Amino acid sequence: MIVSIAELTAKCTDLLMRAGVPQLAAHRAAETLVSADARGIHSHGVIRLARYIDCIKSGGIRPDAEIEVIADAPAYIRASAAGGLGIPASCEVVERMIAKAKNMPLVAASVNHSDHYGAAGYYAMKCADNGLIGFSMSNTCPLIAVTGAKTAGIGNNPFAYAAPAGKFRAILFDICMSVVASGKLIIAAANNQPIPEGWILDKDGNPTTDPKEIYNGAIMLPFGGHKGYGLAMMVEMLSGVLANAGTLSGVNSWNTIPGQDADTGHFFLAINPEFFGGLDNFTARMENVITELTSAPKADGVKKIYYPGELEFISEAKAEADGIDLPDASCAELDRAAANV
Amino acid sequence: MIVSIAELTAKCTDLLMRAGVPQLAAHRAAETLVSADARGIHSHGVIRLARYIDCIKSGGIRPDAEIEVIADAPAYIRASAAGGLGIPASCEVVERMIAKAKNMPLVAASVNHSDHYGAAGYYAMKCADNGLIGFSMSNTCPLIAVTGAKTAGIGNNPFAYAAPAGKFRAILFDICMSVVASGKLIIAAANNQPIPEGWILDKDGNPTTDPKEIYNGAIMLPFGGHKGYGLAMMVEMLSGVLANAGTLSGVNSWNTIPGQDADTGHFFLAINPEFFGGLDNFTARMENVITELTSAPKADGVKKIYYPGELEFISEAKAEADGIDLPDASCAELDRAAANV
Repeated sequence: MIVSIAELTAKCTDLLMRAGVPQLAAHRAAETLVSADARGIHSHGVIRLARYIDCIKSGGIRPDAEIEVIADAPAYIRASAAGGLGIPASCEVVERMIAKAKNMPLVAASVNHSDHYGAAGYYAMKCADNGLIGFSMSNTCPLIAVTGAKTAGIGNNPFAYAAPAGKFRAILFDICMSVVASGKLIIAAANNQPIPEGWILDKDGNPTTDPKEIYNGAIMLPFGGHKGYGLAMMVEMLSGVLANAGTLSGVNSWNTIPGQDADTGHFFLAINPEFFGGLDNFTARMENVITELTSAPKADGVKKIYYPGELEFISEAKAEADGIDLPDASCAELDRAAANV
Repeated sequence: MIVSIAELTAKCTDLLMRAGVPQLAAHRAAETLVSADARGIHSHGVIRLARYIDCIKSGGIRPDAEIEVIADAPAYIRASAAGGLGIPASCEVVERMIAKAKNMPLVAASVNHSDHYGAAGYYAMKCADNGLIGFSMSNTCPLIAVTGAKTAGIGNNPFAYAAPAGKFRAILFDICMSVVASGKLIIAAANNQPIPEGWILDKDGNPTTDPKEIYNGAIMLPFGGHKGYGLAMMVEMLSGVLANAGTLSGVNSWNTIPGQDADTGHFFLAINPEFFGGLDNFTARMENVITELTSAPKADGVKKIYYPGELEFISEAKAEADGIDLPDASCAELDRAAANV
């Protein structure tokens, strides 16, 4: 289905409001989810909305929660999402962080007692669009087996950063810690193609090359082995431990247990280049780096070298001009949400 | 050769002083390199010393450079290494950053016009041993082909973090951005074993499974494909662009062109947990996370699940008790250094 950004945002806002979410929070959640679809990241777009509503309906998310500020200082804000939706809480603390960072070289923001916060990169890009280097991360319920383990011990913790880049707008980088996203496994399973060893373990913790195990309790493995393990740990340290949120098994799955408080944590950081030689100097230097990197000789069969985020910006520009081409699975979830409110 | 930490540090300090490095700077460089050997990271230990002296002898590194402070504020310090050794400059700015961070939630430090700074993790651990979360990163000359490119376009930029962890001392994570370190290729070449596709490109940018290409201009590939690319870019953005150091091809190889100014950049960040709920709270929560992660059911054949840094701490404790078992290659480089001063 082709749908305009405005239309889809209005529809999602309405659905959330009908589930009891106040207007501003509903609009923030809708805008954030739709932004992911516009950027081509449909896995983190409006396909998630119906599940948010499941959580609200079953008591796992408080629809009308307001953030509680735990501490507020020039260089940081620490807040609780108070058991509410992760996105509106994150939008609010990130807006406050950005305002602080106009006058400070470094500002951090943490959120605890939260839930799924959508695409990590959304908040990092808010920083970049305001002339700041932004970092965004969140823990999740355990989904990954760390090096040497046979069970899921740590979250597939998303990590993103973005920075202003002049004529290139920004660089934007947004990853999770597993070798591959579950979407790739689902495609391989549909095609009956074996997957390389090292992508997942079966539910008993044994190596497997059968992608169908994703439907049978398979456990994700971290990308780069111990490197992905250590990066997942970094996110857990900042968004779980430092933010005083749930950690590891203390974070509940909003997907499998919608009625349970997730106690997810998020961490954000902004760096203001004005304090490090000036924003214009920074963006001019970023332009040079991007130009040099992307004009390197291309490998055989490669048409273009992309800078981080470029594919998302291309998708977004197309969505703004022509509307979002929303996948059937996303449409089906919107229908399910509509039937549920 | 078995050698005590004190003896090896004294020997390296002496060699550097004989090359014209003032005592404090020589001691700092020696201590940092020896620390890497003590932690079992011989690739970043005293094996590097002879090359530092080559650079000094050929004019690429100023032995008696002192750092120049570009800007100094409560939340940051920006300095130039003034074409000197990277380690003493980094030690000094990190000490100043740590002192600032006693009273501030977030402090950053940048260094430009620098050179090789040893093991990234050394500076992060200095933070952790002072009750702070520490980050450390540096760019390098281009060594990695980014996704889609057939030439080395970006550095194998090291990234490290560490954090205090109570009875576990700390977590320490220190990586570069290539799939494997060159040491693994050298071993595979010696054993005539093919390597998996995706580790390196040959000098012409074609995929290869022949590890001997490492001796023939092979180009490293980033770990996790675009994920490693984006992480290398993050380090380049902070330690190159933001620090106002050389970037990409503007960073010269101190290994292949010892007489040329490297213009390497470094970036450091400290977060003080006292401002986020208290250090005791943070370390108690870190202990819980480490305990839970490392007591997970083990995969077949695995004896122990390690937390990040544990292997290094075990090696260091052994080195403190029994001395460092220095590899032959490191001893040979020390002999070469001694013959050169």
